[in-house]
Amino acid sequence: MKARVHVMLKNGVLDPQGEAVRHALGTLGFEGVEAVRQGKVIELDLAETDKAKAEASVAKMCEKLLANTVIESYSVEIA
Amino acid sequence: MKARVHVMLKNGVLDPQGEAVRHALGTLGFEGVEAVRQGKVIELDLAETDKAKAEASVAKMCEKLLANTVIESYSVEIA
Repeated sequence: MKARVHVMLKNGVLDPQGEAVRHALGTLGFEGVEAVRQGKVIELDLAETDKAKAEASVAKMCEKLLANTVIESYSVEIA
Repeated sequence: MKARVHVMLKNGVLDPQGEAVRHALGTLGFEGVEAVRQGKVIELDLAETDKAKAEASVAKMCEKLLANTVIESYSVEIA
């Protein structure tokens, strides 16, 4: 079973990486880019075959390792 | 209009970051994690209102800046 996790900085937390990308796009001549946020995506191949169990397990992984929940939010998709 | 870009290392390209995550999950006691790939997700707020034009523009941004197409693949979602 495959899982995909998105980890993004929470709204209100400064995202210098995203800001750098926005600035670079402007320099390259791309107009109309109003805001950019950059985050991480983590794709996991799991041995688990039960969707609910997989989702619970991945949520635990996020809490423990994948996301810093003080400043980052995460979302889990199971496919 | 919002766009979301996923940038992942191509299959066959070694992903040491993903491998480190896989190993750390094992150390933390999460079993059954067979493979991990880590990539970037970039969320853009665009002034463009035409979906097709926005998609074409974001694809150009990926080719020029957001992805290193030698080793990375990208996908664009417009929402």
